[in-house]
Amino acid sequence: MAQTPSIPKGTRDFGCIEMARRNYIFDNIREVFRRFGYQQIETPAMENLSTLLGKYGDEGDKLLYRILNSGDAFANVDFEGQGSAAITSKVCEKGLRYDLTVPFARFVTQHQNDISFPFKRFQIQPVWRADRPQKGRYREFYQCDADVIGSTSLLNELELVQIVDMVFGRLGINVCIKINNRKLLAGIAEVAGVPDKMMDITVAIDKIDKIGLDAVKAELAAKEVSPEAIAVIEPVLQLSGSNASKIATMRALLAGSEIGTRGVEEISQLFDLISAAGIQQTVELDLSLARGLNYYTGAIFEVKALDFAIGSICGGGRYDDLTGIFGLKNVSGVGISFGADRIYDVLLGLDKYPASLLSGASVLFTNMGEKEAAYCVPAIAQLRREGISCVLYPDAAKLKKQFEYANRNNISVVVVAGESEMAAGQFTVKDMASGQQTPVAREDLLHFMKELL
Amino acid sequence: MAQTPSIPKGTRDFGCIEMARRNYIFDNIREVFRRFGYQQIETPAMENLSTLLGKYGDEGDKLLYRILNSGDAFANVDFEGQGSAAITSKVCEKGLRYDLTVPFARFVTQHQNDISFPFKRFQIQPVWRADRPQKGRYREFYQCDADVIGSTSLLNELELVQIVDMVFGRLGINVCIKINNRKLLAGIAEVAGVPDKMMDITVAIDKIDKIGLDAVKAELAAKEVSPEAIAVIEPVLQLSGSNASKIATMRALLAGSEIGTRGVEEISQLFDLISAAGIQQTVELDLSLARGLNYYTGAIFEVKALDFAIGSICGGGRYDDLTGIFGLKNVSGVGISFGADRIYDVLLGLDKYPASLLSGASVLFTNMGEKEAAYCVPAIAQLRREGISCVLYPDAAKLKKQFEYANRNNISVVVVAGESEMAAGQFTVKDMASGQQTPVAREDLLHFMKELL
Repeated sequence: MAQTPSIPKGTRDFGCIEMARRNYIFDNIREVFRRFGYQQIETPAMENLSTLLGKYGDEGDKLLYRILNSGDAFANVDFEGQGSAAITSKVCEKGLRYDLTVPFARFVTQHQNDISFPFKRFQIQPVWRADRPQKGRYREFYQCDADVIGSTSLLNELELVQIVDMVFGRLGINVCIKINNRKLLAGIAEVAGVPDKMMDITVAIDKIDKIGLDAVKAELAAKEVSPEAIAVIEPVLQLSGSNASKIATMRALLAGSEIGTRGVEEISQLFDLISAAGIQQTVELDLSLARGLNYYTGAIFEVKALDFAIGSICGGGRYDDLTGIFGLKNVSGVGISFGADRIYDVLLGLDKYPASLLSGASVLFTNMGEKEAAYCVPAIAQLRREGISCVLYPDAAKLKKQFEYANRNNISVVVVAGESEMAAGQFTVKDMASGQQTPVAREDLLHFMKELL
Repeated sequence: MAQTPSIPKGTRDFGCIEMARRNYIFDNIREVFRRFGYQQIETPAMENLSTLLGKYGDEGDKLLYRILNSGDAFANVDFEGQGSAAITSKVCEKGLRYDLTVPFARFVTQHQNDISFPFKRFQIQPVWRADRPQKGRYREFYQCDADVIGSTSLLNELELVQIVDMVFGRLGINVCIKINNRKLLAGIAEVAGVPDKMMDITVAIDKIDKIGLDAVKAELAAKEVSPEAIAVIEPVLQLSGSNASKIATMRALLAGSEIGTRGVEEISQLFDLISAAGIQQTVELDLSLARGLNYYTGAIFEVKALDFAIGSICGGGRYDDLTGIFGLKNVSGVGISFGADRIYDVLLGLDKYPASLLSGASVLFTNMGEKEAAYCVPAIAQLRREGISCVLYPDAAKLKKQFEYANRNNISVVVVAGESEMAAGQFTVKDMASGQQTPVAREDLLHFMKELL
């Protein structure tokens, strides 16, 4: 007896219902990306390790899945006195993609002569990380990224906010779109006289809601931020009110910092554009937002669901040097990434999936025997040609079993054709929701179905 | 200076145009699968090697991509006196999927208690093979499979023929759907008195068009098929005419073979069903079709493009024991697989892609400066809400450059808004095909665009 097979830890099978839900999310995101003129690309699952290594920090390098060279990988490898790292580098030249950003940077650099800039691309593909699996964290998961590169205009940032607004509007999820700007954070550290402490200050600001003003001030002091600097930062810690009033406060506070003032101008212009565009969802300037602070250089975005407790469901920002790692300098970009797995959980938790997703086909034709099935075949072919999804039960099983099949597969209409229907040139059509049965002449079936469905 | 990055041999980047074409193929196939009530599943890219090994023959095992165990794969591995195979099995537990069939068999076995049979699933995912790359053969490529399992009815075979008919009808490719049945081949060998020579006979039949009757007979003789046996086989070698007359010939020839007679009944019933269903494409009984003879047990399908020289673009058949390898016995299935890469080439060669695929967005709004761009923002938002794909050029570049961008991206309408348009509360709409320019009032733009597009 063979052992029941299984799949690797941290990976998942997606059955029909999960796939229908996932497609609903991907289709919505894809449709919105396209409506904003983003065009899809795909890159290979395998990249050369020279492309991937050193791009995600030491921790990231460890989480890369490496692929054993094909052929006899270990032939001619001298193991004597070699460490694991040395052996690995000899027997593995390729790895699985860890995110969509580095492959995109590689793509742009490699194909720079064929690309017309500004280049608006989207990409929806799985990525792999040898992370410790835990609830909500998988070793294979999809990313849905949109980026514009080759333009520094804030209209791109606006567009990404509009995309977020439209995606979650279509999905029926109320969200708060949080926006920050790295230049504001740099400005704060600068006017406080501690430009090297930007990260500590940001981390502290982030905790204000949880631990309160006094504890944050104590933490700053512990990080050797002087009392004078803390006094300068305090207005940021207590920042509240409308976006306009927050911007006014920051403008005054950062007047003495060139980078801070540029940040204020950017954020002010972006919020003006957002007002003009008629965004439906909540948009909030949030100085505590420190996502991806290591590589974002301007705007930073993060999206949270308002009615469901889960982490960020979408995020992004502007980076001034995406392709520099591959030798193509001075290409500024801004991008956003949707977290499909979390969005999946939010829609499930809020019961926002359309009921129609559960249905595989619209109509089941029962099978009462060989002749009866053959009687159904041309009618089914006609319905399918007209766009109606139909199933003919393949075997002449008991009618009860066939109706159970219809129920389990959420099929809304069942068509019965037995001897009497054949004799009369009819079908009996049963609406599964109402239970109503109607005899319908063969030649009227298409019309009847179009009315019913 | 960094080296220009590249991708692993045998893999591909898909740019915007390739992706649009590939999506056109996948969307069509997916839509047809759904119309026949097939539901999508996805399985992980990585499977345990215990699932994959031994399923594709020795040659296949060598072509599996193995993934190095995460963490320190080589710690505690004693290399002393170990061959490559022994080391590999210690440091690699996972591999990349080689096809969609074995993962599907694993899926069905693993989830058998959650699946309602007959189970109709489709799956469109990439697979990986460490094959020698050559023209038209890649190390990463997509498969598009549909299978029904848990039913022996020939209605399933009919359905797959209908699917092929509808897919290629929608794509505008004229094809010949060739059908054979393993039982016919077994029957021929049986009535010829050489049941163990079925494969030799099939290979010989396959050559009749190329080398002629006498050469085939000589080849059979060389394979130690007796003159008496060759005399029995000769009618098969000369089989021609309509499908009905071929079936009649086979019925007479195979009357003495039980398995052959079953094959005749199956093929005869299938062709009757095909006639009833109103198939548009050519369907042909082809005794020389020997595709997958090692695992198919009943019907065998192969599809060839009629107007473009390329190998098979779709194929499949019935297998009686898909899941037996994983311990789930007596599950019969029948399936079909579309070759997306070849279909891509056929459509390109026959120039059958819709021209609309080349366009990223429908409308470009030019950017004449900050104020002018802001003037466009609400109008663009309105058009997008109504389903029109729009792009606002992000930078105030020269108008010539912006029009070039529209041309390069096959954008059919360009909207210009400069100072004079703003003063008049208008836009100037240019139809790029006709060159016609029309001033349109701000509030009429949506209506005008809907008429134009």
